[in-house]
Amino acid sequence: MLHLVIADSELELVPEKIRDHPSVVNYARKRGKKPDEVLLDSTYHHSALKLLEDGERRGRPDIIHLCLINALESILNKEGKLRVYVHTRNDEVIYIKPETRLPRNYNRFVGLMESLFKNKAVPRDLELLKMRKGTLSELLEEIGPDGIFIMHENGNLLTPKEFGEKLVNYASPAVIVGGFPHGDFLSEVKGERISIYKEPLMAWSVVNEVLINYEGSLLW
Amino acid sequence: MLHLVIADSELELVPEKIRDHPSVVNYARKRGKKPDEVLLDSTYHHSALKLLEDGERRGRPDIIHLCLINALESILNKEGKLRVYVHTRNDEVIYIKPETRLPRNYNRFVGLMESLFKNKAVPRDLELLKMRKGTLSELLEEIGPDGIFIMHENGNLLTPKEFGEKLVNYASPAVIVGGFPHGDFLSEVKGERISIYKEPLMAWSVVNEVLINYEGSLLW
Repeated sequence: MLHLVIADSELELVPEKIRDHPSVVNYARKRGKKPDEVLLDSTYHHSALKLLEDGERRGRPDIIHLCLINALESILNKEGKLRVYVHTRNDEVIYIKPETRLPRNYNRFVGLMESLFKNKAVPRDLELLKMRKGTLSELLEEIGPDGIFIMHENGNLLTPKEFGEKLVNYASPAVIVGGFPHGDFLSEVKGERISIYKEPLMAWSVVNEVLINYEGSLLW
Repeated sequence: MLHLVIADSELELVPEKIRDHPSVVNYARKRGKKPDEVLLDSTYHHSALKLLEDGERRGRPDIIHLCLINALESILNKEGKLRVYVHTRNDEVIYIKPETRLPRNYNRFVGLMESLFKNKAVPRDLELLKMRKGTLSELLEEIGPDGIFIMHENGNLLTPKEFGEKLVNYASPAVIVGGFPHGDFLSEVKGERISIYKEPLMAWSVVNEVLINYEGSLLW
Protein backbone atom coordinates (compact mmCIF):
# COMPACT_ATOMS: atom_id res chain seq x y z
CA MET A 1 0.00 0.00 0.00
CA LEU A 2 1.43 3.34 -1.08
CA HIS A 3 0.44 6.51 0.77
CA LEU A 4 0.56 9.53 -1.53
CA VAL A 5 0.57 12.89 0.21
CA ILE A 6 0.16 16.08 -1.84
CA ALA A 7 1.76 18.43 0.66
CA ASP A 8 1.75 22.18 1.30
CA SER A 9 -0.90 22.38 -1.39
CA GLU A 10 -1.85 25.81 -2.61
CA LEU A 11 -5.51 25.19 -1.89
CA GLU A 12 -7.37 27.67 0.32
CA LEU A 13 -10.38 29.97 0.51
CA VAL A 14 -9.70 33.62 -0.37
CA PRO A 15 -7.79 35.03 2.63
CA GLU A 16 -9.45 37.82 4.61
CA LYS A 17 -6.87 40.40 3.54
CA ILE A 18 -8.04 40.45 -0.10
CA ARG A 19 -11.75 39.66 0.25
CA ASP A 20 -12.71 43.21 -0.72
CA HIS A 21 -10.40 43.31 -3.74
CA PRO A 22 -12.40 43.99 -6.94
CA SER A 23 -11.11 40.82 -8.67
CA VAL A 24 -12.38 38.73 -5.76
CA VAL A 25 -15.68 40.57 -5.28
CA ASN A 26 -16.53 40.33 -9.00
CA TYR A 27 -15.53 36.68 -9.20
CA ALA A 28 -17.63 35.73 -6.17
CA ARG A 29 -20.66 37.68 -7.40
CA LYS A 30 -20.50 36.08 -10.85
CA ARG A 31 -20.54 32.67 -9.18
CA GLY A 32 -23.36 33.62 -6.78
CA LYS A 33 -21.17 33.14 -3.70
CA LYS A 34 -19.71 35.32 -0.94
CA PRO A 35 -16.02 36.29 -1.13
CA ASP A 36 -15.28 34.18 1.96
CA GLU A 37 -16.82 31.09 0.34
CA VAL A 38 -14.71 30.89 -2.84
CA LEU A 39 -11.35 29.25 -3.49
CA LEU A 40 -8.35 31.43 -4.13
CA ASP A 41 -7.48 30.94 -7.82
CA SER A 42 -4.49 32.55 -9.49
CA THR A 43 -6.24 32.52 -12.87
CA TYR A 44 -8.87 34.94 -11.60
CA HIS A 45 -7.25 36.70 -8.61
CA HIS A 46 -3.89 37.47 -10.13
CA SER A 47 -3.79 41.17 -9.23
CA ALA A 48 -5.04 40.53 -5.68
CA LEU A 49 -2.42 37.80 -5.15
CA LYS A 50 0.34 40.40 -5.44
CA LEU A 51 -0.84 41.77 -2.09
CA LEU A 52 -0.29 38.42 -0.33
CA GLU A 53 2.85 36.83 1.05
CA ASP A 54 3.98 34.04 -1.35
CA GLY A 55 1.40 35.44 -3.78
CA GLU A 56 3.36 34.17 -6.80
CA ARG A 57 2.69 30.54 -5.86
CA ARG A 58 -0.71 30.62 -4.15
CA GLY A 59 -4.19 29.83 -5.46
CA ARG A 60 -3.58 26.65 -7.48
CA PRO A 61 -6.57 24.30 -7.17
CA ASP A 62 -5.78 23.21 -10.75
CA ILE A 63 -2.61 21.45 -9.57
CA ILE A 64 -4.54 19.53 -6.92
CA HIS A 65 -7.25 18.61 -9.40
CA LEU A 66 -4.72 17.21 -11.87
CA CYS A 67 -2.84 15.24 -9.19
CA LEU A 68 -6.02 13.75 -7.74
CA ILE A 69 -7.73 12.88 -10.99
CA ASN A 70 -4.61 11.03 -12.14
CA ALA A 71 -4.11 9.25 -8.82
CA LEU A 72 -7.73 8.19 -8.31
CA GLU A 73 -8.13 6.87 -11.86
CA SER A 74 -4.81 4.98 -11.79
CA ILE A 75 -4.52 1.22 -12.02
CA LEU A 76 -2.77 1.28 -8.63
CA ASN A 77 -5.87 2.78 -7.02
CA LYS A 78 -8.19 0.37 -8.82
CA GLU A 79 -6.06 -2.45 -7.41
CA GLY A 80 -6.64 -1.10 -3.88
CA LYS A 81 -2.94 -0.33 -3.34
CA LEU A 82 -3.14 3.45 -2.93
CA ARG A 83 -4.26 5.99 -0.36
CA VAL A 84 -4.29 9.68 -1.24
CA TYR A 85 -4.18 12.69 1.09
CA VAL A 86 -4.02 16.42 0.44
CA HIS A 87 -2.26 18.59 3.01
CA THR A 88 -2.65 22.37 2.54
CA ARG A 89 -0.50 25.42 3.25
CA ASN A 90 -2.83 26.25 6.15
CA ASP A 91 -2.39 22.83 7.75
CA GLU A 92 -5.62 21.20 6.79
CA VAL A 93 -5.68 17.57 5.70
CA ILE A 94 -8.14 16.14 3.17
CA TYR A 95 -8.80 12.38 3.40
CA ILE A 96 -10.11 10.87 0.18
CA LYS A 97 -11.78 7.48 -0.02
CA PRO A 98 -10.27 5.37 -2.82
CA GLU A 99 -13.64 4.80 -4.47
CA THR A 100 -14.21 8.56 -4.92
CA ARG A 101 -15.01 9.57 -8.47
CA LEU A 102 -13.88 13.17 -8.61
CA PRO A 103 -15.51 15.62 -11.04
CA ARG A 104 -13.58 15.65 -14.32
CA ASN A 105 -14.71 19.22 -14.91
CA TYR A 106 -12.48 21.75 -13.16
CA ASN A 107 -15.27 24.16 -12.24
CA ARG A 108 -17.24 21.38 -10.60
CA PHE A 109 -14.11 20.32 -8.70
CA VAL A 110 -13.72 23.90 -7.42
CA GLY A 111 -17.36 23.85 -6.26
CA LEU A 112 -16.74 20.55 -4.47
CA MET A 113 -13.67 21.90 -2.67
CA GLU A 114 -15.60 25.01 -1.59
CA SER A 115 -18.29 22.78 -0.18
CA LEU A 116 -15.61 20.76 1.62
CA PHE A 117 -14.09 23.87 3.23
CA LYS A 118 -17.58 24.84 4.41
CA ASN A 119 -18.95 21.50 5.58
CA LYS A 120 -15.72 19.56 6.33
CA ALA A 121 -17.16 16.50 4.57
CA VAL A 122 -18.74 15.81 1.12
CA PRO A 123 -21.15 14.33 0.47
CA ARG A 124 -22.38 14.66 4.05
CA ASP A 125 -23.62 11.08 4.27
CA LEU A 126 -20.88 9.14 2.48
CA GLU A 127 -17.97 11.39 3.51
CA LEU A 128 -15.93 10.47 0.43
CA LEU A 129 -13.84 13.54 1.23
CA LYS A 130 -13.21 14.72 4.77
CA MET A 131 -11.21 17.71 6.00
CA ARG A 132 -9.53 18.12 9.38
CA LYS A 133 -6.94 20.46 10.86
CA GLY A 134 -3.51 18.83 10.91
CA THR A 135 0.12 19.36 10.03
CA LEU A 136 2.08 17.23 7.60
CA SER A 137 4.01 15.71 10.52
CA GLU A 138 0.79 14.82 12.32
CA LEU A 139 -0.59 13.20 9.17
CA LEU A 140 2.56 11.12 8.73
CA GLU A 141 2.45 10.05 12.38
CA GLU A 142 -1.14 8.93 11.85
CA ILE A 143 -0.29 6.99 8.65
CA GLY A 144 2.72 5.35 10.28
CA PRO A 145 4.66 4.53 7.10
CA ASP A 146 7.78 2.35 7.16
CA GLY A 147 9.55 4.73 4.77
CA ILE A 148 9.11 8.43 3.96
CA PHE A 149 10.20 9.81 0.59
CA ILE A 150 10.05 13.48 -0.33
CA MET A 151 10.03 14.24 -4.06
CA HIS A 152 12.44 17.14 -4.38
CA GLU A 153 14.45 18.82 -7.16
CA ASN A 154 17.61 18.53 -5.08
CA GLY A 155 17.06 14.99 -3.85
CA ASN A 156 19.06 11.85 -4.57
CA LEU A 157 18.74 11.25 -8.30
CA LEU A 158 17.17 7.92 -9.22
CA THR A 159 15.45 6.99 -12.45
CA PRO A 160 11.67 6.68 -11.99
CA LYS A 161 12.07 2.93 -12.52
CA GLU A 162 14.76 2.64 -9.82
CA PHE A 163 12.55 4.57 -7.43
CA GLY A 164 9.64 2.23 -8.15
CA GLU A 165 11.89 -0.76 -7.42
CA LYS A 166 13.07 0.86 -4.20
CA LEU A 167 9.54 1.58 -3.00
CA VAL A 168 8.41 -2.05 -3.18
CA ASN A 169 10.95 -2.89 -0.47
CA TYR A 170 8.59 -1.12 1.93
CA ALA A 171 5.23 -2.51 3.01
CA SER A 172 3.65 0.88 3.51
CA PRO A 173 5.77 3.74 2.16
CA ALA A 174 4.67 7.38 2.12
CA VAL A 175 5.60 9.53 -0.88
CA ILE A 176 5.31 13.29 -0.48
CA VAL A 177 4.78 15.47 -3.56
CA GLY A 178 4.58 19.26 -3.31
CA GLY A 179 1.17 20.63 -4.29
CA PHE A 180 2.61 23.94 -5.46
CA PRO A 181 3.92 25.28 -8.80
CA HIS A 182 7.54 26.07 -7.79
CA GLY A 183 9.68 26.85 -4.79
CA ASP A 184 10.22 24.64 -1.78
CA PHE A 185 8.13 22.88 0.86
CA LEU A 186 6.86 25.09 3.69
CA SER A 187 6.58 22.16 6.11
CA GLU A 188 9.60 20.52 7.64
CA VAL A 189 9.60 16.75 7.29
CA LYS A 190 12.19 14.10 7.87
CA GLY A 191 12.57 11.60 5.08
CA GLU A 192 14.74 10.71 2.11
CA ARG A 193 14.72 13.34 -0.60
CA ILE A 194 14.34 11.82 -4.05
CA SER A 195 14.64 13.39 -7.48
CA ILE A 196 13.47 11.38 -10.51
CA TYR A 197 14.59 13.72 -13.28
CA LYS A 198 17.35 16.19 -14.04
CA GLU A 199 14.83 19.01 -14.48
CA PRO A 200 11.87 20.12 -12.37
CA LEU A 201 8.61 18.35 -13.20
CA MET A 202 5.04 19.43 -12.61
CA ALA A 203 3.44 17.88 -9.52
CA TRP A 204 1.04 15.70 -11.54
CA SER A 205 3.89 14.36 -13.69
CA VAL A 206 5.71 13.28 -10.54
CA VAL A 207 2.52 11.64 -9.25
CA ASN A 208 2.12 9.72 -12.53
CA GLU A 209 5.74 8.55 -12.58
CA VAL A 210 5.72 7.43 -8.95
CA LEU A 211 2.41 5.58 -9.09
CA ILE A 212 3.03 3.84 -12.41
CA ASN A 213 6.60 2.77 -11.63
CA TYR A 214 5.54 1.50 -8.20
CA GLU A 215 2.67 -0.36 -9.85
CA GLY A 216 5.10 -1.82 -12.39
CA SER A 217 7.38 -3.18 -9.67
CA LEU A 218 4.59 -4.30 -7.36
CA LEU A 219 2.10 -5.92 -9.71
CA TRP A 220 3.62 -6.99 -13.02
CA MET B 1 9.84 8.46 -31.16
CA LEU B 2 6.32 7.59 -30.07
CA HIS B 3 3.35 9.10 -31.89
CA LEU B 4 0.35 9.47 -29.58
CA VAL B 5 -2.97 10.02 -31.31
CA ILE B 6 -6.03 10.95 -29.25
CA ALA B 7 -8.63 9.77 -31.75
CA ASP B 8 -12.33 10.39 -32.37
CA SER B 9 -12.07 13.04 -29.66
CA GLU B 10 -15.30 14.53 -28.43
CA LEU B 11 -14.07 18.05 -29.14
CA GLU B 12 -16.22 20.31 -31.32
CA LEU B 13 -17.99 23.65 -31.50
CA VAL B 14 -21.69 23.57 -30.60
CA PRO B 15 -23.42 21.95 -33.61
CA GLU B 16 -25.91 24.06 -35.55
CA LYS B 17 -28.86 21.92 -34.48
CA ILE B 18 -28.71 23.06 -30.84
CA ARG B 19 -27.31 26.59 -31.18
CA ASP B 20 -30.63 28.13 -30.20
CA HIS B 21 -31.11 25.86 -27.18
CA PRO B 22 -31.43 27.93 -23.96
CA SER B 23 -28.53 26.12 -22.27
CA VAL B 24 -26.26 27.04 -25.19
CA VAL B 25 -27.53 30.60 -25.63
CA ASN B 26 -27.13 31.38 -21.92
CA TYR B 27 -23.71 29.78 -21.73
CA ALA B 28 -22.43 31.71 -24.75
CA ARG B 29 -23.86 35.02 -23.49
CA LYS B 30 -22.27 34.58 -20.05
CA ARG B 31 -18.92 34.07 -21.74
CA GLY B 32 -19.40 37.01 -24.12
CA LYS B 33 -19.30 34.79 -27.20
CA LYS B 34 -21.71 33.73 -29.97
CA PRO B 35 -23.28 30.25 -29.80
CA ASP B 36 -21.33 29.18 -32.89
CA GLU B 37 -18.01 30.17 -31.27
CA VAL B 38 -18.16 28.06 -28.11
CA LEU B 39 -17.11 24.46 -27.49
CA LEU B 40 -19.75 21.86 -26.85
CA ASP B 41 -19.39 20.92 -23.17
CA SER B 42 -21.47 18.23 -21.50
CA THR B 43 -21.13 19.93 -18.11
CA TYR B 44 -23.09 22.94 -19.36
CA HIS B 45 -25.10 21.64 -22.34
CA HIS B 46 -26.41 18.46 -20.83
CA SER B 47 -30.06 18.97 -21.71
CA ALA B 48 -29.26 20.11 -25.27
CA LEU B 49 -27.01 17.07 -25.83
CA LYS B 50 -30.03 14.79 -25.53
CA LEU B 51 -31.18 16.19 -28.87
CA LEU B 52 -27.98 15.09 -30.64
CA GLU B 53 -26.94 11.75 -32.04
CA ASP B 54 -24.38 10.16 -29.67
CA GLY B 55 -25.32 12.92 -27.22
CA GLU B 56 -24.39 10.77 -24.21
CA ARG B 57 -20.71 10.83 -25.16
CA ARG B 58 -20.21 14.20 -26.86
CA GLY B 59 -18.85 17.50 -25.54
CA ARG B 60 -15.82 16.36 -23.53
CA PRO B 61 -13.00 18.91 -23.84
CA ASP B 62 -12.05 17.95 -20.26
CA ILE B 63 -10.83 14.53 -21.47
CA ILE B 64 -8.64 16.13 -24.14
CA HIS B 65 -7.26 18.65 -21.65
CA LEU B 66 -6.28 15.91 -19.20
CA CYS B 67 -4.67 13.73 -21.89
CA LEU B 68 -2.68 16.62 -23.34
CA ILE B 69 -1.51 18.15 -20.07
CA ASN B 70 -0.22 14.77 -18.94
CA ALA B 71 1.45 14.00 -22.27
CA LEU B 72 3.09 17.38 -22.79
CA GLU B 73 4.49 17.55 -19.23
CA SER B 74 5.77 13.97 -19.32
CA ILE B 75 9.45 13.05 -19.10
CA LEU B 76 9.08 11.36 -22.50
CA ASN B 77 8.11 14.67 -24.10
CA LYS B 78 10.88 16.54 -22.30
CA GLU B 79 13.31 14.00 -23.74
CA GLY B 80 12.05 14.78 -27.26
CA LYS B 81 10.67 11.29 -27.80
CA LEU B 82 6.98 12.10 -28.20
CA ARG B 83 4.65 13.65 -30.76
CA VAL B 84 1.02 14.28 -29.86
CA TYR B 85 -1.98 14.68 -32.18
CA VAL B 86 -5.69 15.14 -31.51
CA HIS B 87 -8.13 13.78 -34.08
CA THR B 88 -11.77 14.78 -33.58
CA ARG B 89 -15.16 13.17 -34.29
CA ASN B 90 -15.60 15.62 -37.17
CA ASP B 91 -12.28 14.62 -38.80
CA GLU B 92 -10.15 17.54 -37.82
CA VAL B 93 -6.54 16.98 -36.75
CA ILE B 94 -4.72 19.16 -34.23
CA TYR B 95 -0.92 19.19 -34.46
CA ILE B 96 0.81 20.21 -31.24
CA LYS B 97 4.43 21.29 -31.05
CA PRO B 98 6.27 19.43 -28.28
CA GLU B 99 7.39 22.67 -26.60
CA THR B 100 3.79 23.84 -26.14
CA ARG B 101 2.94 24.79 -22.56
CA LEU B 102 -0.81 24.27 -22.43
CA PRO B 103 -2.95 26.28 -19.99
CA ARG B 104 -3.27 24.38 -16.71
CA ASN B 105 -6.60 26.07 -16.10
CA TYR B 106 -9.47 24.30 -17.85
CA ASN B 107 -11.39 27.45 -18.74
CA ARG B 108 -8.32 28.93 -20.41
CA PHE B 109 -7.82 25.69 -22.31
CA VAL B 110 -11.41 25.91 -23.57
CA GLY B 111 -10.76 29.48 -24.71
CA LEU B 112 -7.62 28.34 -26.53
CA MET B 113 -9.47 25.54 -28.33
CA GLU B 114 -12.22 27.96 -29.38
CA SER B 115 -9.58 30.26 -30.80
CA LEU B 116 -8.04 27.27 -32.62
CA PHE B 117 -11.36 26.29 -34.22
CA LYS B 118 -11.76 29.90 -35.37
CA ASN B 119 -8.22 30.70 -36.56
CA LYS B 120 -6.86 27.20 -37.33
CA ALA B 121 -3.58 28.11 -35.57
CA VAL B 122 -2.64 29.53 -32.14
CA PRO B 123 -0.77 31.66 -31.47
CA ARG B 124 -0.91 32.96 -35.03
CA ASP B 125 2.84 33.60 -35.25
CA LEU B 126 4.29 30.55 -33.49
CA GLU B 127 1.59 28.08 -34.54
CA LEU B 128 2.16 25.89 -31.48
CA LEU B 129 -1.22 24.35 -32.26
CA LYS B 130 -2.50 23.93 -35.81
CA MET B 131 -5.77 22.45 -37.04
CA ARG B 132 -6.47 20.88 -40.40
CA LYS B 133 -9.21 18.73 -41.89
CA GLY B 134 -8.19 15.09 -41.96
CA THR B 135 -9.31 11.58 -41.10
CA LEU B 136 -7.52 9.29 -38.69
CA SER B 137 -6.35 7.16 -41.62
CA GLU B 138 -4.95 10.20 -43.41
CA LEU B 139 -3.11 11.26 -40.26
CA LEU B 140 -1.59 7.81 -39.85
CA GLU B 141 -0.52 7.77 -43.48
CA GLU B 142 1.18 11.10 -42.96
CA ILE B 143 2.95 9.94 -39.77
CA GLY B 144 4.07 6.71 -41.42
CA PRO B 145 4.58 4.64 -38.25
CA ASP B 146 6.21 1.20 -38.34
CA GLY B 147 3.57 -0.14 -35.94
CA ILE B 148 0.00 0.89 -35.11
CA PHE B 149 -1.54 0.04 -31.74
CA ILE B 150 -5.12 0.77 -30.80
CA MET B 151 -5.86 0.91 -27.08
CA HIS B 152 -9.11 -0.99 -26.75
CA GLU B 153 -11.09 -2.70 -23.97
CA ASN B 154 -11.33 -5.85 -26.05
CA GLY B 155 -7.75 -5.88 -27.30
CA ASN B 156 -5.00 -8.41 -26.60
CA LEU B 157 -4.34 -8.19 -22.89
CA LEU B 158 -0.79 -7.21 -21.97
CA THR B 159 0.43 -5.68 -18.74
CA PRO B 160 1.37 -2.01 -19.19
CA LYS B 161 5.00 -3.03 -18.68
CA GLU B 162 4.83 -5.71 -21.39
CA PHE B 163 3.28 -3.21 -23.76
CA GLY B 164 6.09 -0.72 -23.04
CA GLU B 165 8.63 -3.43 -23.79
CA LYS B 166 6.84 -4.31 -27.02
CA LEU B 167 6.71 -0.70 -28.19
CA VAL B 168 10.48 -0.19 -28.04
CA ASN B 169 10.88 -2.83 -30.74
CA TYR B 170 9.51 -0.20 -33.13
CA ALA B 171 11.44 2.90 -34.20
CA SER B 172 8.36 5.01 -34.67
CA PRO B 173 5.18 3.40 -33.32
CA ALA B 174 1.77 5.09 -33.26
CA VAL B 175 -0.48 4.51 -30.25
CA ILE B 176 -4.14 5.42 -30.63
CA VAL B 177 -6.19 6.28 -27.54
CA GLY B 178 -9.89 7.11 -27.78
CA GLY B 179 -10.68 10.70 -26.76
CA PHE B 180 -14.17 9.82 -25.59
CA PRO B 181 -15.70 8.74 -22.25
CA HIS B 182 -17.08 5.31 -23.27
CA GLY B 183 -18.22 3.33 -26.28
CA ASP B 184 -16.14 2.46 -29.30
CA PHE B 185 -14.08 4.23 -31.95
CA LEU B 186 -16.04 5.86 -34.76
CA SER B 187 -13.14 5.67 -37.21
CA GLU B 188 -12.00 2.43 -38.74
CA VAL B 189 -8.30 1.81 -38.40
CA LYS B 190 -6.12 -1.18 -39.00
CA GLY B 191 -3.72 -1.98 -36.22
CA GLU B 192 -3.18 -4.29 -33.28
CA ARG B 193 -5.76 -3.85 -30.56
CA ILE B 194 -4.19 -3.74 -27.11
CA SER B 195 -5.76 -3.78 -23.67
CA ILE B 196 -3.57 -2.99 -20.64
CA TYR B 197 -6.05 -3.71 -17.87
CA LYS B 198 -8.93 -6.02 -17.12
CA GLU B 199 -11.31 -3.07 -16.65
CA PRO B 200 -11.94 0.04 -18.75
CA LEU B 201 -9.62 2.93 -17.92
CA MET B 202 -10.10 6.64 -18.47
CA ALA B 203 -8.31 7.98 -21.57
CA TRP B 204 -5.76 9.98 -19.55
CA SER B 205 -4.91 6.93 -17.42
CA VAL B 206 -4.16 4.97 -20.58
CA VAL B 207 -2.01 7.85 -21.86
CA ASN B 208 -0.03 7.92 -18.60
CA GLU B 209 0.51 4.15 -18.56
CA VAL B 210 1.61 3.99 -22.19
CA LEU B 211 3.99 6.95 -22.06
CA ILE B 212 5.61 6.04 -18.75
CA ASN B 213 6.07 2.35 -19.55
CA TYR B 214 7.48 3.19 -22.99
CA GLU B 215 9.79 5.73 -21.32
CA GLY B 216 10.84 3.07 -18.80
CA SER B 217 11.80 0.60 -21.54
CA LEU B 218 13.36 3.18 -23.84
CA LEU B 219 15.37 5.34 -21.48
CA TRP B 220 16.19 3.66 -18.18
